[in-house]
Amino acid sequence: MKNYDIAVYGLGVMGSSLAKNMINKGFKVAAFSKSEAEKERFALNGKEDSYVVCSTKEQMLSSLKSPRIIFLMITAGAPVDSVIEDLLPALEPGDIVIDGGNSYFKDTSRRYNDLKEKGICYMGVGVSGGEKGALLGPSMMAGGSKEGWEASKHILKTIAAYYKDEPCCTYIGPEGAGHYVKMVHNGIEYAILQLIAETYHIMKYGLNLEHDSILGTFENWKNSKLDSYLIDISVTVLEKMDEDNTPLVDKILDVAEQKGTGKWTLEEAIDRGVYIPTIFEAVFARSFSSNKEIRVQGNKHLSHSGSPYTLDDYEKKLGEALLAGVIASYAQGMALIAKASEENGWKIDLSELASVWREGCIIRSVLLSEVKESLTEEKENLMLSEAFHYITKLEPALREVVTKTSSAAIAIPALASALNYYDYFRMEQMPVNFVQALRDCFGAHTYKRVDKEGYFHTEWEK
Amino acid sequence: MKNYDIAVYGLGVMGSSLAKNMINKGFKVAAFSKSEAEKERFALNGKEDSYVVCSTKEQMLSSLKSPRIIFLMITAGAPVDSVIEDLLPALEPGDIVIDGGNSYFKDTSRRYNDLKEKGICYMGVGVSGGEKGALLGPSMMAGGSKEGWEASKHILKTIAAYYKDEPCCTYIGPEGAGHYVKMVHNGIEYAILQLIAETYHIMKYGLNLEHDSILGTFENWKNSKLDSYLIDISVTVLEKMDEDNTPLVDKILDVAEQKGTGKWTLEEAIDRGVYIPTIFEAVFARSFSSNKEIRVQGNKHLSHSGSPYTLDDYEKKLGEALLAGVIASYAQGMALIAKASEENGWKIDLSELASVWREGCIIRSVLLSEVKESLTEEKENLMLSEAFHYITKLEPALREVVTKTSSAAIAIPALASALNYYDYFRMEQMPVNFVQALRDCFGAHTYKRVDKEGYFHTEWEK
Repeated sequence: MKNYDIAVYGLGVMGSSLAKNMINKGFKVAAFSKSEAEKERFALNGKEDSYVVCSTKEQMLSSLKSPRIIFLMITAGAPVDSVIEDLLPALEPGDIVIDGGNSYFKDTSRRYNDLKEKGICYMGVGVSGGEKGALLGPSMMAGGSKEGWEASKHILKTIAAYYKDEPCCTYIGPEGAGHYVKMVHNGIEYAILQLIAETYHIMKYGLNLEHDSILGTFENWKNSKLDSYLIDISVTVLEKMDEDNTPLVDKILDVAEQKGTGKWTLEEAIDRGVYIPTIFEAVFARSFSSNKEIRVQGNKHLSHSGSPYTLDDYEKKLGEALLAGVIASYAQGMALIAKASEENGWKIDLSELASVWREGCIIRSVLLSEVKESLTEEKENLMLSEAFHYITKLEPALREVVTKTSSAAIAIPALASALNYYDYFRMEQMPVNFVQALRDCFGAHTYKRVDKEGYFHTEWEK
Repeated sequence: MKNYDIAVYGLGVMGSSLAKNMINKGFKVAAFSKSEAEKERFALNGKEDSYVVCSTKEQMLSSLKSPRIIFLMITAGAPVDSVIEDLLPALEPGDIVIDGGNSYFKDTSRRYNDLKEKGICYMGVGVSGGEKGALLGPSMMAGGSKEGWEASKHILKTIAAYYKDEPCCTYIGPEGAGHYVKMVHNGIEYAILQLIAETYHIMKYGLNLEHDSILGTFENWKNSKLDSYLIDISVTVLEKMDEDNTPLVDKILDVAEQKGTGKWTLEEAIDRGVYIPTIFEAVFARSFSSNKEIRVQGNKHLSHSGSPYTLDDYEKKLGEALLAGVIASYAQGMALIAKASEENGWKIDLSELASVWREGCIIRSVLLSEVKESLTEEKENLMLSEAFHYITKLEPALREVVTKTSSAAIAIPALASALNYYDYFRMEQMPVNFVQALRDCFGAHTYKRVDKEGYFHTEWEK
C-alpha cells in the first residue's frame, strides 16, 4: 500500500493539472479532495496504475511512502489553516506538507514556524504558469523547510518547466520566502501588463493606427529583446476576432479589479521603503479603472490643451520605451526582494531566482537571462548593472514617447514612472534639501549638511 | 481643591505649549509629567494662580472638576497604552481621556473601544500647527467619544486657531476618525512640500535662475491663490543665509527619512484602493533620497538625451502648475478620507473638516475656503467640482511644465503625477481593456464587455 510518491490534496483546475503532470512524469500520486465532484472528475486515461483517488484523508496518508509528502493545492487563506488543522493529528514528525497556492507570505511564515515546532516540514511553494503550466511544467519557487525541499526536490524539479536542461525550480529561502518571491513576481507581472497595455493604447488612441498595423508591430517585437510570453499572447489577443469579425479586444470593458498579490507587493514596498513606482501605477490603474462613471463625467468636465500625437519610427521607439519600462519593472521587483531578503535574513540568491523565471511562469522572457546575469554583478540596483547598461540606448526613445504622449494628453503613468525611475538614479541632487529646510522651519525636524557631519537645526525666522 | 478645568499630562514641547495656551485663555490647568525635569521646567510667569504642577497623578486627578478631563500629550505608540494602563485604576465612568499625539488611528480606535466598555470617554484628537500652533492656537480634529467632545469642546474650541470668528476645531467622527484625518492631513502636507521643492528645483537646476529671482518668485506667489503657510515659510527659508552669507538651503543635504504618517496614509490608500499618486511620490522621494551614494553612482553610469530647459513666463506657469498640483493633492487626500468614512461608517463632514484646516495647521492656505466650498457640492471627487473648475485653466501650464521638465531630464514625479491624475479623470477609455484581455488569456480571469452585461471568458488560442 505505502508505495505512492506524493499526495495531491485539492483537485481543482490547478491541483488536478499538477497531479497529472506528476503522473505523466512517472510518479505515483495519491489524489484527494474534500469535494466529491472534484474526485469524481479526476481521471487520466491509460495511467490508472499510477494514481489512486482516495476516499478519505486517512487513505491518502496511509498510501504514501516515507517521508510522506502532501502537496496542497487549495484556496489560499483560511482554507489552508483549516486543512492543516484537520491533517495535523494524523501527521508525524518528518512528514512534508507543501502549500502550492498563492498564500500570503506572512501566513506561510507563521505556518512554517508553527509546524516546525511539531517536527513537520512545511513548505510554501510559489507556482506560476496557470493551468497549462501546472500540467506541462510550471516555474516553482520553493520556500520553507530545507529538509522538506531535500526530500521533495526530485519530484518538484522533475515536474517543473525547463530552460534548456535546467529545471525552473529552486529553493529560495526559509519561512515564507517562496511565496514572497511569487508575490513580487506577480507585482512585476502587473507592471509589464500595464506597460504593454499603455503601448497598445498609444498606438490605437494616440497614433490612431489600424488594428493590423498594431498587430504587425507586436508580431515584429517577437523578434526582439521584447520576446516573451506576454508579447506572444498580446499577438494572440490581437488576432482574436469577435462574432462580428471586429477585434474582440475592442469589446472588452476597460474596468478591472486588483486582488491580493499586487496589493501585498505595495504594502511590502511601503513597509521597507523600496520605491516601486511602475508596480504602484499598474496596481492603481486597475483600481482607478473600476469607476468608469467618474471618467465619463471627468471627460466632459475637464478640458485639455493636448497637441496632436506624432511619432516617427513608432515601432522602434515604442518597442524601446516598452523594453526600458520592463527593465525598470524588474529592477524595482528585485530591489524589493533584495531588501526583504536582507531584513528577514533569508539569503535569497537573486540570480538563481531569475533563472527559475526563464520558463514556465507568466513573466518568462528572453530578457530574464540578462536579469540573471545582471544580478551576479551584485550591484545595488539592476539599473546600474553592466548587463543592462544598454538601457542608456533605450532612454532617448522612452523620453520621447513619454513627453510626446503627455503632450498629447494621454495618461501613461507606468511608462512615465519608468522614465522618472531612470532619472531619479541620475539625480545626484534631488529637491529634498528644500523639503528638509521647510520641515526644520515648521517642525524643528533638523537636517544634515553637505559640508559637516551631524544633525542641525536653525531658527529660520530670526 | 477640585477646581481645575483640565489636566495636561506630558510637558514636553507640545504639552507645555498647549497647557500655556489653556492657561492664557483662562482655564485652570493641572499639569503633570512623569519627567521631573519637564515638571521643574514648566512655568508661566504671572499666571501662577491658574495652574498647579502636580507631584503625582493622584494629585492631578483629585484636582479636577467633574467631569474630569485629562489631555495626554505624550509620545505616540506604546507610551500611550502604558499611561492609560497606569491611570485606569484611578479613573471613573464619565472621565474624559484625550490623546493629542500623532497616534496611529487603529490604536486610537482600539483604545476608544476598550475604554468605552469601562465607561471612560476616550478621544483621539489630531493637533496640527507645531509648537507655535500649540501655544497660540492649533487646528484640532477631534475623534472618539461624542460625550467627551460635548464635555470638553468649550476648552478645545477656545484654545484652537480661529479663521475669522470660527474656531478651527470640530468633532470629526467616532473611534480613530480624528487621528485618521490628521494622518491624511500629513499625507497632503508631504505632497505639497514635495511639489514646492520640485518647483524650486526646476527654477534652480532647470532654469538656472539666480537665488534672488527664485526668492522673488516665491514672494510674488504670496499674492496669489498659492498664498499659504508653506509658501510663507518657503520665503523665510530662502531668505536665510548661512554664516558665509550664501543661501543656507544650498548647504542642506538632499536626504530625508519618512516616518509614520506618510507611510500609514499610503497603506490606507492601498487597502481601500484609492489612488493617491502625488502623496505616494512625495513619501518615496524621501525614501529614495536616503541612498545618496547610489545616485552619485547612477549619475556617472546613466547618460541622458535631455534637451536644455527653456520656459517663458516661468513665474506664471510654474505657479499655475504648482497650484494644480496642490489641488490634486487635496483631491487625493479628501477622496481617501471619504472612502474611509464610508467604509468605517464614520460620517465625516468633509466640508467641515476643510474648514478647520483653514487656520492653525501646516497646510493652511487661502485655497482651503475653496476646498470647503467644493466639498459641499458632494461630487465624487474634488477634481470634478465647480469650485475647482478653474483647474482647467491651470492645466496648460501644468502640462507644459511637466513635459518640458521631463524633456530636460529632470525628474519631478509629484508634478508629473498631478498631470497624470488630471488626465486619468479625462480618460473615458483606459488601456485596462488590453490588460483584461491578457489576463483572461493566460489565467481565465474573465472580463466584462462594453455591449453586454456579465462576465465573459474566451478560448483565445483557438
